[in-house]
Amino acid sequence: MRLNPEGKLELLKRKVIYTGMEKKFKPKPSLKTNNDTGFGSNANNYGGRFVNRDGTFNLRREGVPFLKRLSIYHKMLNMPRWKFAASIIVVYITINLLYSMIYLLLGRSQFTGMIANTPWQTFKELYFFSTETFTTVGYGRINPIGDGANIIAAFEAMNGFLSFAVVTGLMYGRFSKPKSYLTFSEHALIAPFQDKTALMFRFANYKDHHVLTNVEIKVSMALRTEENGEAKYNFYDLTLERNKVDSLSMNWTVVHPIDDNSPITGFTEEDMRNADAEIYVLVSGFDDVYSCSVLQRTSYTFNEMKFGAKFIPMYRESDDGNTTILEMHKLHETMEARI
Amino acid sequence: MRLNPEGKLELLKRKVIYTGMEKKFKPKPSLKTNNDTGFGSNANNYGGRFVNRDGTFNLRREGVPFLKRLSIYHKMLNMPRWKFAASIIVVYITINLLYSMIYLLLGRSQFTGMIANTPWQTFKELYFFSTETFTTVGYGRINPIGDGANIIAAFEAMNGFLSFAVVTGLMYGRFSKPKSYLTFSEHALIAPFQDKTALMFRFANYKDHHVLTNVEIKVSMALRTEENGEAKYNFYDLTLERNKVDSLSMNWTVVHPIDDNSPITGFTEEDMRNADAEIYVLVSGFDDVYSCSVLQRTSYTFNEMKFGAKFIPMYRESDDGNTTILEMHKLHETMEARI
Amino acid sequence: MRLNPEGKLELLKRKVIYTGMEKKFKPKPSLKTNNDTGFGSNANNYGGRFVNRDGTFNLRREGVPFLKRLSIYHKMLNMPRWKFAASIIVVYITINLLYSMIYLLLGRSQFTGMIANTPWQTFKELYFFSTETFTTVGYGRINPIGDGANIIAAFEAMNGFLSFAVVTGLMYGRFSKPKSYLTFSEHALIAPFQDKTALMFRFANYKDHHVLTNVEIKVSMALRTEENGEAKYNFYDLTLERNKVDSLSMNWTVVHPIDDNSPITGFTEEDMRNADAEIYVLVSGFDDVYSCSVLQRTSYTFNEMKFGAKFIPMYRESDDGNTTILEMHKLHETMEARI
Amino acid sequence: MRLNPEGKLELLKRKVIYTGMEKKFKPKPSLKTNNDTGFGSNANNYGGRFVNRDGTFNLRREGVPFLKRLSIYHKMLNMPRWKFAASIIVVYITINLLYSMIYLLLGRSQFTGMIANTPWQTFKELYFFSTETFTTVGYGRINPIGDGANIIAAFEAMNGFLSFAVVTGLMYGRFSKPKSYLTFSEHALIAPFQDKTALMFRFANYKDHHVLTNVEIKVSMALRTEENGEAKYNFYDLTLERNKVDSLSMNWTVVHPIDDNSPITGFTEEDMRNADAEIYVLVSGFDDVYSCSVLQRTSYTFNEMKFGAKFIPMYRESDDGNTTILEMHKLHETMEARI
Repeated sequence: MRLNPEGKLELLKRKVIYTGMEKKFKPKPSLKTNNDTGFGSNANNYGGRFVNRDGTFNLRREGVPFLKRLSIYHKMLNMPRWKFAASIIVVYITINLLYSMIYLLLGRSQFTGMIANTPWQTFKELYFFSTETFTTVGYGRINPIGDGANIIAAFEAMNGFLSFAVVTGLMYGRFSKPKSYLTFSEHALIAPFQDKTALMFRFANYKDHHVLTNVEIKVSMALRTEENGEAKYNFYDLTLERNKVDSLSMNWTVVHPIDDNSPITGFTEEDMRNADAEIYVLVSGFDDVYSCSVLQRTSYTFNEMKFGAKFIPMYRESDDGNTTILEMHKLHETMEARI
Repeated sequence: MRLNPEGKLELLKRKVIYTGMEKKFKPKPSLKTNNDTGFGSNANNYGGRFVNRDGTFNLRREGVPFLKRLSIYHKMLNMPRWKFAASIIVVYITINLLYSMIYLLLGRSQFTGMIANTPWQTFKELYFFSTETFTTVGYGRINPIGDGANIIAAFEAMNGFLSFAVVTGLMYGRFSKPKSYLTFSEHALIAPFQDKTALMFRFANYKDHHVLTNVEIKVSMALRTEENGEAKYNFYDLTLERNKVDSLSMNWTVVHPIDDNSPITGFTEEDMRNADAEIYVLVSGFDDVYSCSVLQRTSYTFNEMKFGAKFIPMYRESDDGNTTILEMHKLHETMEARI
Repeated sequence: MRLNPEGKLELLKRKVIYTGMEKKFKPKPSLKTNNDTGFGSNANNYGGRFVNRDGTFNLRREGVPFLKRLSIYHKMLNMPRWKFAASIIVVYITINLLYSMIYLLLGRSQFTGMIANTPWQTFKELYFFSTETFTTVGYGRINPIGDGANIIAAFEAMNGFLSFAVVTGLMYGRFSKPKSYLTFSEHALIAPFQDKTALMFRFANYKDHHVLTNVEIKVSMALRTEENGEAKYNFYDLTLERNKVDSLSMNWTVVHPIDDNSPITGFTEEDMRNADAEIYVLVSGFDDVYSCSVLQRTSYTFNEMKFGAKFIPMYRESDDGNTTILEMHKLHETMEARI
Repeated sequence: MRLNPEGKLELLKRKVIYTGMEKKFKPKPSLKTNNDTGFGSNANNYGGRFVNRDGTFNLRREGVPFLKRLSIYHKMLNMPRWKFAASIIVVYITINLLYSMIYLLLGRSQFTGMIANTPWQTFKELYFFSTETFTTVGYGRINPIGDGANIIAAFEAMNGFLSFAVVTGLMYGRFSKPKSYLTFSEHALIAPFQDKTALMFRFANYKDHHVLTNVEIKVSMALRTEENGEAKYNFYDLTLERNKVDSLSMNWTVVHPIDDNSPITGFTEEDMRNADAEIYVLVSGFDDVYSCSVLQRTSYTFNEMKFGAKFIPMYRESDDGNTTILEMHKLHETMEARI
């Protein structure tokens, strides 16, 4: 685990230079591949990992016009708060600049009540006339009397009106956008579990009140293999000790027992690297704050798997004995475990 | 059933001091535990009941920054109406105080049309200038003419604009938030039912027009047991006489027959207490006013179970014979029943 | 079929006076009752039909405070358009009356710019000052200068602000409320179908663009019977020739074959009446205009069933041969059919 | 493939003139028809194709009043952006024209502060008074003083208020309307696939961030046949090599193997034409930007099927090897394939 200069965990890329000398992963014939991942198998056409840690696909589109491809709604909804506020302020200033330019071109004589003596003062006065029109404040000291000024002001007021409607919609969209507030452990661990070895990771909901119900998890693994001299990826469903819980109130440790049905039975760290292993995680559930199904994706590449470590417990009884405490800061904490 | 000073039913805590002398609950080996409740089994790490009567989990989070943990949307949506209104008024007064302070600092000379003679009057006049700017009323007697005042007023008008958008979003969120308007009987009853004994509780929708469709119910029970000297909780699905109805137009009495498949067959009140029994109820259905699935949780601890009582009927034909009357006030009413 | 004075189909009530002389319906022991309708079986506690033609339950609540029982959101959303508009206008006029009363009490001296000469003129002037404050127009000829007037005006502007937010939310709620725009045939018909007899009704979507997908239908029948001298209702699922279609683009005729598995095999009109027959229909589907599941209920009592009639076809090829025409006006049209 | 004058692909109509000499399609008795398409089978009542390329049904309604049939919400939400903006501007201008007419009728004497000298100037001045009232700007130079003008202005301000609410709702509706941004290949191809022949088409999501999850596809085929001298349509489910994928991040080529279970085994282009073949495609999935299920329909008639062509690959590794590139412009590109 390395932290990059901004203090964030540096997520290693999956890109590996193959020397041709590595032991190749040969799947057992009895292993059933998962054909429904939605990924094609041609290894040469893929770059880097399949899925990023934040759940987005590691994919770019080409040949679609930018505006058609762009999802403005998605962009405005997922922008950090400060950026959203900044965008609004910038747009506000720009629109008013535009309108005040037009008023300036129409000329001062189209307005009554102005007190400016210099061109610069005139510009400023018209700029603030524009803001009070756009926001529909309309103090009214300055008043359009010329036809041009009246038409533009009527248009600007309507424009303000509509901008307001847009912003209201976006605001509400941001509020009400369903999200599954899950954090996943930084590493997937491979360690003894009961009398076998298992691959494990865990996650929890960090938001108060947002309890997921009917939570299901699906974990697939991509392994690079060679068939008839051609590199390709095989995808496998990982069987889980448990793949659904009724309510996700606490943390959940997902366990894939590495037994004979596992594609990685007997793998060493080196083997994982050679097979370019990546697991792809999809959690779904019902959030009753939004009364909506929510999804969250993530992935772990072989660089994000740790051998010989297990998670430490992360809940305890409160001091007064009346409540249970979920210790979220321990989510990523592990201790050594002999394999 | 005790009422606390505010007249509400006092819900007893599950916390029990064990003397070590109690008969321990030993589950029959044939009983299948439910591993999908989402709760861990380690009894020592749990404090108090699992789920509160209102359906929230009896759980606190630690180690997540307050703002990240806080669900403002959830808070604003679930606040009582008067609190929501009060918050808005307080915010409104505060924001205007802030802006009027700035106007005061900029100085009276930045405005025309003021009539105040004393500093206190000046403050008041600027305060109300601020309110008419923020709400975009803009009467216009007082008018910003200085640059500072103009900039701040333009900003305040936009700020008012945005606040309005936020409030509109919250209002709509409050209106349209799907809820399952269910009330549950105060007690779960244990009484004879047909030729067996059964555990029963009932619930009904108290809201007109809100009919739940495809209603499903799931009831689990937590029982404290000891294994190898360690206290732990076992969770059991309770089999129900009926676990779904097509439409919840009336009340529904949920019946768990206490037969050989029940984990509490042969239990006395004392046994329930010793096993720290708690049942966890999850109702889901489709509400066609919101066109949305809704969920409601609740729980009954052993203190909220009553032996030897059964529910009295709660509907009757109307006097004119054309309608059925649902007598909601009888929801909690029971009569004695010999066990 | 009778039309009442307003030209609407008069829906007969199910209420029947029993003389005690009727042949009683005796269900065959092999018939399975449907226990999941959500209705209780005690016949004496029911008044009139179970479900109204418009799909609401024929049910009233008692013992819940009016405001708790009332679903304002549902009310405002399902009000006819003119009533919604009228409510808004009435509320608007009333609120302004209230505020203008307060301004009148505070006295004319708290305002500048007034031109009224008589008390009646003063009231009118203050009333229109109130409207321009509430709507945040704020022309500004009249201006509050007294403290009281300023405070109330600041409050009124905020109040207007919030009212606007409420109305915006309601408007959007009305727009975006998912609905299944289905009309059902006025009668359920009992007529020969292929080589058997069948009970049939049909329905179609009358709205352009609103296509239901994955449409499922469930039909249950309530029949009054006597068991041990006590009148009770039995509920039966009716088996349907087809109970789902992929897309409801056209009309759908729902067919229940009256064979040995039908509870009403061999019934005459008289038998239907004696058994107080009512069928309860629940249609569900996915509407992709709203991207939402929608539900619609209806019911037919024995008075709304017709023996010896079948539906006439209701679609045809367009004249240019390029399109299909759905003839909605023929939905209720039937022709005679020998039983 | 022909492009019409506007450069769009001209979609041929299915309408075919039959000479009576064509080989008639005779379905094998073992083939199971799909009775759940929602289409009736009477061929003479159908005109043109069943489903249009854009997924709407080729259907018109008759006998429903225009306003009842019209889905305004759907219309406003699916209008192109420029048309939506234009509608708003037209409505804005019209409403203000109406109000200014009323003000004109009431007479100039009902207002103070007017400076107009000619009737035309008076009209203009009142028009702009109307716009500042409707938008609640309210500069206030012109002021209603007569009762009539006051009442109308109060009403207009409220009207502006409500129009704003409507527009806000529509804007938000447009933003947040769930859509499945899928493009389908222009043609369905019939070509060798592995060791059989198959019918294939493909589609992909052209929008960034919008990943569909749990994607299912259902493909049905309509074939015209003759039974007892009567033309009718039979509908068949087409079995697919794969009918669901976990996530639609990339493109998906849907493959129907033309084997013994296929209704079109052994068909030539001529046979397809004679049987008036049309396939109807329904894709459903969960979009986590909207947290909503979305649907998309399309269809291919025999004119939109191509024999002896297969798709070329449409993704590749990026130059730096860290990402995969989806080449959307290649979606429709095919190469020759011997059958």
